Amino acid sequence: MRFVSAVTALAITGTSALKCRDTDPNVKGPYIAAKAPLENIFAPISADEANDIREFLDRQSNVTIPSDIFFNTYDGLWLLAPNKTEATAYLDGHGPKPPRYARGFGTSNCFDREFMIGPLPVSNLTKATPLTYTNHGNSDIRNSWCDAESTNGRRDRAKREIHEARRKKIQRRDPHNPYEEEMKWSGRELPHDQKAPPVAILPDGARHEFDPKQNYVSWMDFTFFISTGPAGVSIHDVRFQGERVVYELAMQEALAHYAGPDKRQTDASYLDVTIGFTQYNLIPGYDCPSYATYTDAFCLFEFAKDYPMSRHRDYPYYHATQNIAFLLRTVSTVSNYDYQTTYEFYHDGSIQVLVRATGYIQGSTVVDVPGDREYGFRIRPELSGSMHDHVLNFKADLDVQGRNNTLFKTEFVPHSEVYDWSDGEVINTMKVERSFITNEDQGKINWAANAAAAYSIVNKDKVNEFGEYPGYRIYPSTGSPIHVTVQNSTVFGKLIDWAAHHFYILKRKDSEPVSAHPKARTWDLQSLVDFSRFFDGESLEQEDLVLYFNLGMHHMPDTYDLPVTVFQGAQCGITLRPQNYQRSDASISTRQQIHITNIEDQVRVETYGAEAPSGSYDLNNTSPPWYPLPERWS
Amino acid sequence: MRFVSAVTALAITGTSALKCRDTDPNVKGPYIAAKAPLENIFAPISADEANDIREFLDRQSNVTIPSDIFFNTYDGLWLLAPNKTEATAYLDGHGPKPPRYARGFGTSNCFDREFMIGPLPVSNLTKATPLTYTNHGNSDIRNSWCDAESTNGRRDRAKREIHEARRKKIQRRDPHNPYEEEMKWSGRELPHDQKAPPVAILPDGARHEFDPKQNYVSWMDFTFFISTGPAGVSIHDVRFQGERVVYELAMQEALAHYAGPDKRQTDASYLDVTIGFTQYNLIPGYDCPSYATYTDAFCLFEFAKDYPMSRHRDYPYYHATQNIAFLLRTVSTVSNYDYQTTYEFYHDGSIQVLVRATGYIQGSTVVDVPGDREYGFRIRPELSGSMHDHVLNFKADLDVQGRNNTLFKTEFVPHSEVYDWSDGEVINTMKVERSFITNEDQGKINWAANAAAAYSIVNKDKVNEFGEYPGYRIYPSTGSPIHVTVQNSTVFGKLIDWAAHHFYILKRKDSEPVSAHPKARTWDLQSLVDFSRFFDGESLEQEDLVLYFNLGMHHMPDTYDLPVTVFQGAQCGITLRPQNYQRSDASISTRQQIHITNIEDQVRVETYGAEAPSGSYDLNNTSPPWYPLPERWS
Repeated sequence: MRFVSAVTALAITGTSALKCRDTDPNVKGPYIAAKAPLENIFAPISADEANDIREFLDRQSNVTIPSDIFFNTYDGLWLLAPNKTEATAYLDGHGPKPPRYARGFGTSNCFDREFMIGPLPVSNLTKATPLTYTNHGNSDIRNSWCDAESTNGRRDRAKREIHEARRKKIQRRDPHNPYEEEMKWSGRELPHDQKAPPVAILPDGARHEFDPKQNYVSWMDFTFFISTGPAGVSIHDVRFQGERVVYELAMQEALAHYAGPDKRQTDASYLDVTIGFTQYNLIPGYDCPSYATYTDAFCLFEFAKDYPMSRHRDYPYYHATQNIAFLLRTVSTVSNYDYQTTYEFYHDGSIQVLVRATGYIQGSTVVDVPGDREYGFRIRPELSGSMHDHVLNFKADLDVQGRNNTLFKTEFVPHSEVYDWSDGEVINTMKVERSFITNEDQGKINWAANAAAAYSIVNKDKVNEFGEYPGYRIYPSTGSPIHVTVQNSTVFGKLIDWAAHHFYILKRKDSEPVSAHPKARTWDLQSLVDFSRFFDGESLEQEDLVLYFNLGMHHMPDTYDLPVTVFQGAQCGITLRPQNYQRSDASISTRQQIHITNIEDQVRVETYGAEAPSGSYDLNNTSPPWYPLPERWS
Repeated sequence: MRFVSAVTALAITGTSALKCRDTDPNVKGPYIAAKAPLENIFAPISADEANDIREFLDRQSNVTIPSDIFFNTYDGLWLLAPNKTEATAYLDGHGPKPPRYARGFGTSNCFDREFMIGPLPVSNLTKATPLTYTNHGNSDIRNSWCDAESTNGRRDRAKREIHEARRKKIQRRDPHNPYEEEMKWSGRELPHDQKAPPVAILPDGARHEFDPKQNYVSWMDFTFFISTGPAGVSIHDVRFQGERVVYELAMQEALAHYAGPDKRQTDASYLDVTIGFTQYNLIPGYDCPSYATYTDAFCLFEFAKDYPMSRHRDYPYYHATQNIAFLLRTVSTVSNYDYQTTYEFYHDGSIQVLVRATGYIQGSTVVDVPGDREYGFRIRPELSGSMHDHVLNFKADLDVQGRNNTLFKTEFVPHSEVYDWSDGEVINTMKVERSFITNEDQGKINWAANAAAAYSIVNKDKVNEFGEYPGYRIYPSTGSPIHVTVQNSTVFGKLIDWAAHHFYILKRKDSEPVSAHPKARTWDLQSLVDFSRFFDGESLEQEDLVLYFNLGMHHMPDTYDLPVTVFQGAQCGITLRPQNYQRSDASISTRQQIHITNIEDQVRVETYGAEAPSGSYDLNNTSPPWYPLPERWS
């Protein structure tokens, strides 16, 4: 047991423990200071901006905003993302910086309405007007009780009161251990476990560049901007070798749908972004290596994976390439549960988006009715590990060699044919069927049985020299992506239309910026966003496309989930990777390769100028700095 | 470029570079020397044993063995695994060591026959007799041309000659780069890439115990034996907290099924174990960390994963557990392709089996026929990246609290019900359906759509205190497991019956020890093993069960596969993990946890006696030793 003052711990961390090279006081850990080539137009509304907006709104009341509107500016002021057309013009250097706007959610007795406030910074030009161009022009949700004192109106008001009481309870829901076990060492001795285990170190300092002001990152062939919003940490304008491959990769909503024999457990389902997905916290040395770059919302670090990128033996030649990945990680704790989201970048041009879940499960008190075990395992005398689905929806706006793209499908199918050469014999073999998803009517897609179908975003206008379409493939890489089990959920209705399939392909439009609204009203199932309306038969051939894919897991907690869920049993990831995108695999460009010629008594080794670490390393640097970073409630 | 003599390199490696603590001259790298509690009864036939057997067989000719039998003892002498009943009696301390036998494959003009040779070591008691008790009494395959000079006989002899010519060609198939690119640095500069990347170190020495004589490993809560056979590296008698959970986990066969518009590419499909899956080779520092323990067939190492085992924030408390895994890894190069197999052990009691593939793809010269692109992408002017399936079959003989087990299925299903509490309203929700796979007739199983069904091996006779069955769950964890696309393959016929579904559950029997025979004859599709015969309607309720599961991937190589396939695009893993097996998650027993109390100016840290590394570390130790280990052709 150690006691250290927080101030001391911070000081230690900031200097020797992390070999810190801070240029920004809010960032800990090593990085190469860089300056973004452009401003981060996706940056969240800052505290200063929020203050200015708050003052501005106070002045505006009774002028352009109805008098009974109340702005909850504490958790409700977010960036209104710029329109893609203007944003890409700016990012590509042939347009001005798009005007900056905030989104604010105002509530009155009779409706909830979203406003756009801008341009920012606040000036004489700044206005607050109903946000009408997003969400198909849907800018407010009327409360039915404002209508004549109908039965519906009365019932809705009562439901809202119940809902709000429950919501407050949820938000205050006990993040402490509700069961008998605590997270702590069991006291059972494991052999040699007191000795230090292997640990990753950064022997030669950081190799990634970071501009903390703009949250701009450059690592090897990748550059990108980072932002935060109501649904966590997102990445923007991701370029590979200077060319945009992803315009936006951002979580939209995180669903936890429970079931149970009683009303309590049936209702205790959550849209975690509506509750709050912004309670970032990281434990240095555990959530990320000690040498990572830490901000108040995420960490950044390179990591040597335990297996190489590729290798081959062709005796007497041996060749291998190291697999050094770059990770952007965030952890959001939503009361009892902790979601870890990681964006992993690889030398081969691939990006994996990974979500893992841990924390205290929401079990339920056993209800003494027949069939109560049909909703979960019994894991303690009076405790059921209630069954539930986690479904996390991500927006992936890929741009492959421009904005006009098509979703390409290649499917392995059994095939029988009498070939010219088969002497009349029917040959049982296989073929690959090539097709395109050409219309939004075909845009709701489940991963094929036996993983037979592969999907990629391609550019049909940029056929490569071999007659193939350059593209980025999207495929499940960790765990098994799911859609929600429940059909036409009584608890959520249309609010979770985005969860009914594994992924969706749509024409990207400024009026459809998100699949789910962070202020969805779970008490009367109203939301400004109606995802099903997005599917209106538009052509998807060589259009600006957007994917919405789901990560998640069916979770039937058992005693293995006590005291907390284990990450590796509750993880899911999808990878985007080049397909016929370049002439070869891009990982041949890292120097971290070895070529060995092993002939009799001579070993010849080529390492391509990669410097081997030498000298000595202070092992105190491997100790995690003893402080968690400040919580951020944005 | 460095030149070092192999002898010097070996010496460096054996001492300072690896902080070596060898007790066995054939093992490099650190480990804690241990003595297995028992002999490894699964050990492969040693070189000395093989010599003795060869001499013995020479003496026996013309006595008990037909005079025209030829033993190819070089690649054909393997262990005949002991029968499980006798083996478990020995392993559990209430039986003698089972007699040791080798299997040898003899060929004559008229038949191929398998012999059992033992008991070993060779003595007066040793005999060579046809191996009849395995493979349903099937001990030889007759050649049809020995029958009357029928059309079939003549055709079969001709086919064999063609096949053997092709097989020789395959075995000599060029492992060099058949295309224009080489594996080497492209010469394109990446920023900061000459600097050393992060690297894993072992600051306090090895924490795993290893007995290289018996290939016995002890790491934390796990112990197991390692063996090698025709199908690579396998693990045996895997115990968790002293209790056997896996009797045997072993690859059986590795299929690469191609398709193409021409006969050449259609026929160029492989059963890689029949070709040879024993060309082990490892590049230290690339295939495994520099600090791993290396033998001539595998490496062993602990590794700190980039994410924790679990964590939770319950402000002002923060808790996290390190995720230190233990890996057993082997690489087999089969001509142009390199398969990496990894067994990963985790503190929570889970074991992941992972296969990754890399190396030069087998492309094919473009054939100028319509529809040639229906068999693959064009990746070079005259080169098609031929489509193919990789399917790798593994035997997993789990024993959960004894040998009498049942396969348990829990499936998430949508459910609608008017509940007592729902005021007559139909609630759309879900349930979990519990069922058992009770008979071999239901034993051919595909993973459910939407991952809705979970499978676990449970012991119904050992209901836990909460009324649930203790078990080990089996689930896809990396990539997407597949079965073969081709139905009733013309190329392989019944030889790949094990590849038609995702997994199989069977009653374990001494007469059905393997799903595929390493001497399967691809020329006339004959094998001693007929997997379909295993399914004969036997009960699976509380029996000794065995699973055969498939890993693999559909592979449609694109330019991303040049010069070689990238591991992370071609990997697949399945995890076995406890389910209601113990009272809690076992990872609470590692000391590598942190508990932080973060109250205002005081940070209180509990680390449970885990020693933090201190002092300095010689970074030269991170450089991989410059030699590949000797190849092993067993």
